[in-house]
Amino acid sequence: MRVKDVKKVVLAYSGGLDTSVILKWLQTTYQCEVVTFTADLGQGEELGPARDKALMLGIKPENIFIDDLREEFTRDFVFPMFRANALYEGCYLLGTSIARPLIAKRQIEIAEMVGADAVAHGATGKGNDQVRFEVGYYALKPDVKVIAPWREWDFSSRTALIAFAEQHQIPVSKDKRGEAPFSVDANLLHSSSEGKILEEPWEAPDEMVWQRTIRPEDAPDVATEITMEFERGDAVAINGVRLSPAMLLTKLNELGRANGIGRLDLVENRFVGMKSRGCYETPGGTILHVAHRAIESITLDREVAHLKDSVMPRYAEIIYNGFWFSPERRMLQAMIDESQASVSGEVRLKLYKGNTIVTGRRSPNSLYSMKHVTFEDDQGAYDQFDAQGFIKLNALRLRLGAMAGRKGGAL
Amino acid sequence: MRVKDVKKVVLAYSGGLDTSVILKWLQTTYQCEVVTFTADLGQGEELGPARDKALMLGIKPENIFIDDLREEFTRDFVFPMFRANALYEGCYLLGTSIARPLIAKRQIEIAEMVGADAVAHGATGKGNDQVRFEVGYYALKPDVKVIAPWREWDFSSRTALIAFAEQHQIPVSKDKRGEAPFSVDANLLHSSSEGKILEEPWEAPDEMVWQRTIRPEDAPDVATEITMEFERGDAVAINGVRLSPAMLLTKLNELGRANGIGRLDLVENRFVGMKSRGCYETPGGTILHVAHRAIESITLDREVAHLKDSVMPRYAEIIYNGFWFSPERRMLQAMIDESQASVSGEVRLKLYKGNTIVTGRRSPNSLYSMKHVTFEDDQGAYDQFDAQGFIKLNALRLRLGAMAGRKGGAL
Amino acid sequence: MRVKDVKKVVLAYSGGLDTSVILKWLQTTYQCEVVTFTADLGQGEELGPARDKALMLGIKPENIFIDDLREEFTRDFVFPMFRANALYEGCYLLGTSIARPLIAKRQIEIAEMVGADAVAHGATGKGNDQVRFEVGYYALKPDVKVIAPWREWDFSSRTALIAFAEQHQIPVSKDKRGEAPFSVDANLLHSSSEGKILEEPWEAPDEMVWQRTIRPEDAPDVATEITMEFERGDAVAINGVRLSPAMLLTKLNELGRANGIGRLDLVENRFVGMKSRGCYETPGGTILHVAHRAIESITLDREVAHLKDSVMPRYAEIIYNGFWFSPERRMLQAMIDESQASVSGEVRLKLYKGNTIVTGRRSPNSLYSMKHVTFEDDQGAYDQFDAQGFIKLNALRLRLGAMAGRKGGAL
Amino acid sequence: MRVKDVKKVVLAYSGGLDTSVILKWLQTTYQCEVVTFTADLGQGEELGPARDKALMLGIKPENIFIDDLREEFTRDFVFPMFRANALYEGCYLLGTSIARPLIAKRQIEIAEMVGADAVAHGATGKGNDQVRFEVGYYALKPDVKVIAPWREWDFSSRTALIAFAEQHQIPVSKDKRGEAPFSVDANLLHSSSEGKILEEPWEAPDEMVWQRTIRPEDAPDVATEITMEFERGDAVAINGVRLSPAMLLTKLNELGRANGIGRLDLVENRFVGMKSRGCYETPGGTILHVAHRAIESITLDREVAHLKDSVMPRYAEIIYNGFWFSPERRMLQAMIDESQASVSGEVRLKLYKGNTIVTGRRSPNSLYSMKHVTFEDDQGAYDQFDAQGFIKLNALRLRLGAMAGRKGGAL
Repeated sequence: MRVKDVKKVVLAYSGGLDTSVILKWLQTTYQCEVVTFTADLGQGEELGPARDKALMLGIKPENIFIDDLREEFTRDFVFPMFRANALYEGCYLLGTSIARPLIAKRQIEIAEMVGADAVAHGATGKGNDQVRFEVGYYALKPDVKVIAPWREWDFSSRTALIAFAEQHQIPVSKDKRGEAPFSVDANLLHSSSEGKILEEPWEAPDEMVWQRTIRPEDAPDVATEITMEFERGDAVAINGVRLSPAMLLTKLNELGRANGIGRLDLVENRFVGMKSRGCYETPGGTILHVAHRAIESITLDREVAHLKDSVMPRYAEIIYNGFWFSPERRMLQAMIDESQASVSGEVRLKLYKGNTIVTGRRSPNSLYSMKHVTFEDDQGAYDQFDAQGFIKLNALRLRLGAMAGRKGGAL
Repeated sequence: MRVKDVKKVVLAYSGGLDTSVILKWLQTTYQCEVVTFTADLGQGEELGPARDKALMLGIKPENIFIDDLREEFTRDFVFPMFRANALYEGCYLLGTSIARPLIAKRQIEIAEMVGADAVAHGATGKGNDQVRFEVGYYALKPDVKVIAPWREWDFSSRTALIAFAEQHQIPVSKDKRGEAPFSVDANLLHSSSEGKILEEPWEAPDEMVWQRTIRPEDAPDVATEITMEFERGDAVAINGVRLSPAMLLTKLNELGRANGIGRLDLVENRFVGMKSRGCYETPGGTILHVAHRAIESITLDREVAHLKDSVMPRYAEIIYNGFWFSPERRMLQAMIDESQASVSGEVRLKLYKGNTIVTGRRSPNSLYSMKHVTFEDDQGAYDQFDAQGFIKLNALRLRLGAMAGRKGGAL
Repeated sequence: MRVKDVKKVVLAYSGGLDTSVILKWLQTTYQCEVVTFTADLGQGEELGPARDKALMLGIKPENIFIDDLREEFTRDFVFPMFRANALYEGCYLLGTSIARPLIAKRQIEIAEMVGADAVAHGATGKGNDQVRFEVGYYALKPDVKVIAPWREWDFSSRTALIAFAEQHQIPVSKDKRGEAPFSVDANLLHSSSEGKILEEPWEAPDEMVWQRTIRPEDAPDVATEITMEFERGDAVAINGVRLSPAMLLTKLNELGRANGIGRLDLVENRFVGMKSRGCYETPGGTILHVAHRAIESITLDREVAHLKDSVMPRYAEIIYNGFWFSPERRMLQAMIDESQASVSGEVRLKLYKGNTIVTGRRSPNSLYSMKHVTFEDDQGAYDQFDAQGFIKLNALRLRLGAMAGRKGGAL
Repeated sequence: MRVKDVKKVVLAYSGGLDTSVILKWLQTTYQCEVVTFTADLGQGEELGPARDKALMLGIKPENIFIDDLREEFTRDFVFPMFRANALYEGCYLLGTSIARPLIAKRQIEIAEMVGADAVAHGATGKGNDQVRFEVGYYALKPDVKVIAPWREWDFSSRTALIAFAEQHQIPVSKDKRGEAPFSVDANLLHSSSEGKILEEPWEAPDEMVWQRTIRPEDAPDVATEITMEFERGDAVAINGVRLSPAMLLTKLNELGRANGIGRLDLVENRFVGMKSRGCYETPGGTILHVAHRAIESITLDREVAHLKDSVMPRYAEIIYNGFWFSPERRMLQAMIDESQASVSGEVRLKLYKGNTIVTGRRSPNSLYSMKHVTFEDDQGAYDQFDAQGFIKLNALRLRLGAMAGRKGGAL
């Protein structure tokens, strides 16, 4: 992009050192008007300082946008994703991946409002987040100009970056002078840590990496019992208390944190082609995932459940790769949402030192039929003799194969 | 089947009350020669009594077959399945499902040896096991006659069955007189409990249900650290000690038991069409599953891993439904086994009160490249600028869609 | 089923010899009231005679139901299926499969109306149709009693059946006395022929088998050109003339018939476990299938199209197996229908001696961008340099693999 | 890439104008030694002139490589792909896609032989071929330098390119001076045409576009009948005459050409993100595809066939996108090849004016059982009564759903 091309840019601004440097770099390099957007996604930081810092760096008050997106984030992004039981590579609850599209969406909305022609973010050129931001931008505003300073500028070292900061009167706190021992992303769903001291996958993460959960060892010796209520696939109440989506997730986070639940130390495959190691904490999300599967276990038809399971890896990959705002995600979502019509009821859980243990599930829509499953007299609900025909016809093709010389399913 | 049609039958015989009644019922109803087959699959019971009982019930010594199949079971059934990371309905490690095909296979081998024309098993007409046994029988010996006494006889109650036992001098121990509070299946991989007191899915299982693991609460307060070594997808050593498959699984079971690992309380969908509730204990298998995913995480290519994940639900369903000896399972196995060529290396784990926590993984075949992933100077290993073209072309179709009026991935 | 259990039965009645025998057999064996239901699904037969025959066989006028279901069949069954581009085993357009659920649905509606407790059909015990009928019945009325005479009665030969007919004053036309050389099923979508002279898959079908299309050799030497218009995935007009669904399919059938289009000679796998050989004629459906893919080719996003293709075999299998009225079909349908929002536009086709050749497609929703694809000057629409980064990151995992000794994608 | 970095480059050289310009451009811009590689993949051009031209442009004789790869191409690339019944987007037989990996492989082999550090190709920056070449290069030689002149040079117009040619004494034939009306790629499997006059998807292609097949209208009025023999999934003989893979494909091409078979006019989705329109001729491949499905129809188990169908779209996408040399393709290939063990036998076909009509199939490994499928007396092969239990248990979950208020498969 030629620098003169940009008139006004909306920057995803955290208020931290790095995005402050980006802010100043945009002003000086692109010589364009900068609009900052700071979102409360539940990352647990005050947003006031971000406003102050933006003002201090010369942003006009009308160009400073600060939004509390916690409810929208939980309701429209986290909950739909949990309806799918999404796990990336069998383990990861996609806490970072799911937040990026919402930030991108809000940036583009602001760009449309203020007439900006460009957007910028603070993600590096090696990670997935740049993709998630930019795919969102392009899908929502196809002619938008995208500035990814980490891919463009020439700060060859952290020292050079800090020198730039000091040169431009950006406050650099003492602890930022030296580099952080790892980098962190956080929102209402999770915290992730990666890089630096975590880069050797044979080394266990230092305890200080875990910020959002206590050690299982330090959790109470007595289990916490809770019940969760679901309606059409979404959690709506804990212990009988109805809560908004964000408040419910907040409550689950507290319960998870206190019981050492939701830690994950994973080597994963990035969309950009390399493996990376991340340490994730998803306390509330872990509980929600287990509980959602439990309520589905009695309310979903078998083939519906299996169909969901068969598309789940693809759905998770779509979100991980940053394609939330894509027609394929919307297609899958339509299917998944359709499946949740009857996913209502109650789940009872025991939370204990890292474990989320299902101890009961019930639903007015339950498909579990004690009458059919019982070993006791079922009063004719099920005719055991039907099983013979069922087995014989299911085995017929294998018998025909064996008769043709392919015994035991030989190919 | 007309009773006069059967000349000689091989019965899967546990030595317990039920299969002893079946044995006698076969003798009296079909008036055929009965051959008993009792397998040690690691269920933890002495096999001597089964031999004695068979003799006592009039089985000729040459018609009594007792085999220790623990190594074959682990090596040729459990391990191949774990290469696939198989989980049925997101949770179940398929401990019962995987044992049935081996029993069927051995029964058919014996039938061929002794010239039997029929086989019989003690599974009921409501469950999955009848399917697993019989599909195996038919696939291996398409002309075999199958006798499923539970579907055929007319014992209308447990009392009638016990009366039959007493009438035929089958010993009935006191605790069998009343009915067991739930039914149990066990082998080296797991124990499962279901039925009776477990039939209400809202009620938590009584602690006595769990027989193979101690309560997480009762497990040591200090984590147990272990390392596991893998070669081509299979675990081969624990803490540096090389073990045969069955011995390795036995060792993992001990470690799992002691740390309260591997309990699962699940409502699942049976192949025969109803939901059932099972309580499963898979201590060693749970550890093996987690460790296998961990070694794969650094040795498998991304697309290989995702392809495996995408077929896994189907693979698990095939095994759950009883189609181990099918060409589709063999096809998938060929693909899965092919993927494991480089899955060798070491995993370090912390076992703690129900948790299996990965703390490290390394491999001579690792695809993790610290040089590429590092936030530090990567000396040109990765050109961050490539990400721009990568993102732009990945987003192109979405931009074209948005320009055509379908913003944000609208359909 | 004990015969005394049935009070009133709704029979799917064609008016032919076989279902007339069934009618009488139900009356004499079950001694129940019989209600007949005859549907016009476009099979090309007069329905008046069916009414007369039912009356003659003693059915009360108020118990005779005759419905013209052609529009419902096309609109609610055929068209939704064609949105999915459904092909069973790569070839078969599912013409028989898709008609059965509608018949089942209407039978159950009538059963509810007249207070019948049972339904009956004339499908044999070897085929798929029995499954399709009965799965539909059970899904719509779970307590319904199902009578499948072909599985129950003891007519050991065609002669015995005809003797029964004569004994009960059922008219037997001369040509029915000897057996037909093959059996036929027909509806607005297709005709299928199977059995008898078609049972040897190495023998080509006799020309008399084909009843609904002329031989390609006999078709005109000059191609017929047509245009078809689509709206949201459904065909709505031919050559600019808007037609109702059934009228449109009728018109396509005429065009297909005249040009020798839509013959298929296939060995397929039945749900009940054996292979069978069928000769299918789907003249209009074949044209519709090709045209629908063509309009999708310019209106569907790539990933949407690929996702559809990936679930298509499963969707087709569901319908083939008879699970139209299942939640898994509804789930997939929700996803497929969602994808069709923009599938509107026009397709031009050449029909010529068995060939359906696409010669043009256009749409107001087209995603085809000449500006982007052109080899000519694209005025900056596409920056070829982006491809470098795109390729390098897509290849990165393979390069890392090769560096780790796995050249050329070795595993 | 800095130009001075390249020492020796292996160029995929056709001998045509474009790659001759590239050759000279590499010499002048990179000032490196150029090695030319020209392959006979059955494109139907003499290779002698390519050698002469390379010599004339100053390439040393030892740096000129010309290989006849027709057998390797057919045996190791085309045939394995046809085992999968691969179709991209439901229609395209992947004729261009499958040739690129072999060219890439041979270029890398030559690079290793001659000690070259770079490779170059003549594909543009908008198409898929650049990806297919380069992904192959990187997968086989991860440190190779890749030169894609079309993405790098600054010929802003065809005129500039021709001026460069004339300036460097590259012969420019008269017909190349003006631009070709469309661009063509050809090999033993197919010819493709795209661009220029084909860019408007509403316009039918001019007849001159089709070069490898005659018009169906011009094909003989009498069908040609052939038989094809298969062994383990590969065609091995036509009309009883055993032929090598390339000779067999050549023969099929002749048969297809003469009967107007294998034309396809398609709008497809490119991997780089835009839609394009291609006109493909795959005469022999079309016949092979139909015949292969036919021999599979009697030799493959149902679930094997369905599993193949379910992964086919993914397999085709992998090849289309250029990932032949990837572990995921190898994994799928392992599975597919495993399935072909019994795919041997004979298929009879009628070729007639664009149609490939199966008229018979037989195999020593046939799973088709006339005894089971017959409507006649099957002498007890199949017990129709089994169907009742089969249906009842298959419908059980739907009945339970309906009883719980979800009639007709409602969600």
